Amino acid sequence: MKVKMEEGEKDLKAVWMDDNKVKMIDQRFLPSELKFYTAGDYKDIHKAIKKMMVRGAPAIGVTAAYGMAQAIIQEKKIEKVAEHIKSARPTAYDLFNAVEFMLDHAEKPVKAAEDYASNVIEKCRKIGEHGSELIENEDRILTHCNAGALATVDYGTALAPIRIASERGKDIHVFVDETRPRLQGARLTAWELHNEGIPHSVIVDNASGHYMFRGEIDLVIVGTDRIVSNGDIANKIGTYEKAVVAKENDIPFYVAAPVTTYDSSTETGRDIPIENRDEKEIKMINNSLIAPKDSPARNPAFDVTPAEYISGFITEKGIFSPSELDDMF
Amino acid sequence: MKVKMEEGEKDLKAVWMDDNKVKMIDQRFLPSELKFYTAGDYKDIHKAIKKMMVRGAPAIGVTAAYGMAQAIIQEKKIEKVAEHIKSARPTAYDLFNAVEFMLDHAEKPVKAAEDYASNVIEKCRKIGEHGSELIENEDRILTHCNAGALATVDYGTALAPIRIASERGKDIHVFVDETRPRLQGARLTAWELHNEGIPHSVIVDNASGHYMFRGEIDLVIVGTDRIVSNGDIANKIGTYEKAVVAKENDIPFYVAAPVTTYDSSTETGRDIPIENRDEKEIKMINNSLIAPKDSPARNPAFDVTPAEYISGFITEKGIFSPSELDDMF
Repeated sequence: MKVKMEEGEKDLKAVWMDDNKVKMIDQRFLPSELKFYTAGDYKDIHKAIKKMMVRGAPAIGVTAAYGMAQAIIQEKKIEKVAEHIKSARPTAYDLFNAVEFMLDHAEKPVKAAEDYASNVIEKCRKIGEHGSELIENEDRILTHCNAGALATVDYGTALAPIRIASERGKDIHVFVDETRPRLQGARLTAWELHNEGIPHSVIVDNASGHYMFRGEIDLVIVGTDRIVSNGDIANKIGTYEKAVVAKENDIPFYVAAPVTTYDSSTETGRDIPIENRDEKEIKMINNSLIAPKDSPARNPAFDVTPAEYISGFITEKGIFSPSELDDMF
Repeated sequence: MKVKMEEGEKDLKAVWMDDNKVKMIDQRFLPSELKFYTAGDYKDIHKAIKKMMVRGAPAIGVTAAYGMAQAIIQEKKIEKVAEHIKSARPTAYDLFNAVEFMLDHAEKPVKAAEDYASNVIEKCRKIGEHGSELIENEDRILTHCNAGALATVDYGTALAPIRIASERGKDIHVFVDETRPRLQGARLTAWELHNEGIPHSVIVDNASGHYMFRGEIDLVIVGTDRIVSNGDIANKIGTYEKAVVAKENDIPFYVAAPVTTYDSSTETGRDIPIENRDEKEIKMINNSLIAPKDSPARNPAFDVTPAEYISGFITEKGIFSPSELDDMF
């Protein structure tokens, strides 16, 4: 991803390995400050994942792979390291996969970790290639949350088609849902688009329907955490509303994700457990209370969007409709 | 409205007249502090309206009526006072009406202002009476923004049926959309419900679709700024999304408003001009930037909800479907 820095524009990744050290953008300080974190050993890797300096399942996986490589070079007890790194985000599927991959490829650890990272990045680039064909010149595209390079090391999933369409000279405008409660759209997606020089507008989540109704949005692209057997998805809270309103206004609604996101063992979206997070994420903004202290808040982190609202899935293998999923994955 | 204070629960209004002074809750400090403002003359009234110590068209109208009464008692040049008060919010219809009413009833100014206020409150109480019949025991009701007592002096419009259903012993739960960007739901509606002792949960605007999809919301009630000839409405940004998702899930969607909100001279919602407000309302929360400073934001304050999504209008004269509007108003 392009990043504007004092010394000029640079091409950065969310996380990378340099001289046996694992380096990353510390995403907690974006968009106001661009800070970097260097992990010197596996305890730092655990901390970086746990404290959400790095977030997004693919980027966490790559961080874990680099952390494992570093620990192998440092001749740490690798089984113990593996357990410690995995415990940083106990529900992260990609984290486990990355650690297992490194245990299986411990003989050339740096090369293995770089292969793992390249594979993640290459999938995103292909998602971008396929998805960019859906984007016409002058399209106005809505996205929700941050499914960008910060979450996937480079390119992103939902943002990959947008990046590549823009690189190829298409004149586009991106509407960025701010994505309450954690504001990943306003904080991270807008930061990425600003750095890439892609025209965009931040809007409150409440306003996307207004722009859809007025015919000012041509296409919606979001990421996803899980695609289940019948084509339903789970994604950041609010995705369902966007999908329903898009369908009501005949606006195509696409979900961008690598094929590994497909979970054929779960039948429908209603079978996906929804994480409920701390009410402080809603009631406190920048350490300031925005609701009465005695008013309870409910904070589901994800919602389910049924397949009927999804025009297609943009994957590294091409674009598929929900009914084609079982054949293609 | 009930308000919990250190000396016990009190019955307060958003604005009232006491010993020829106009007193009000200074809403800018809610929910963290309950402060009052006393307007000593018409310049203070102008300031209170302009600085949004008081907000909501009906409450602004009553404030203006009391301010005019005070100025008449103080023997100010009344035409000049009228112009000054009207200039505080140049788009506020109720403000103009209140000032004109007082010019027509200047001989008994305090009685006239109290009549004006009583009329506003009585309409809201009747909206509450009619609307409460839509609410069943154990209903879970979604509301958006603040169409409460703070906006209408007492009872509210959307909150009036909720207050009266609760007073009559119905066991209800209110989902309160936080209502970005200005957070009137989290700040004001939650504060009112907390004070009334009505069970509620604050949610981000993104989450209401999730609860509708899961069958956890039985009824939606919102207020409105304007109802036009074909039954379309304009209301706080986000109302349209709630209405579309409610219809998709077969959840009744009601709009509560006095009949004066009906504007038969405007044909459809698409003819209503939408105010675009300062992007700072989105990008700055509690003086802290939540998006890149160079990322533009777009901030439409209202959206249009077409009549097809509206189950009915709850007014002081009863409940009407969109197709009955022309006959009834």
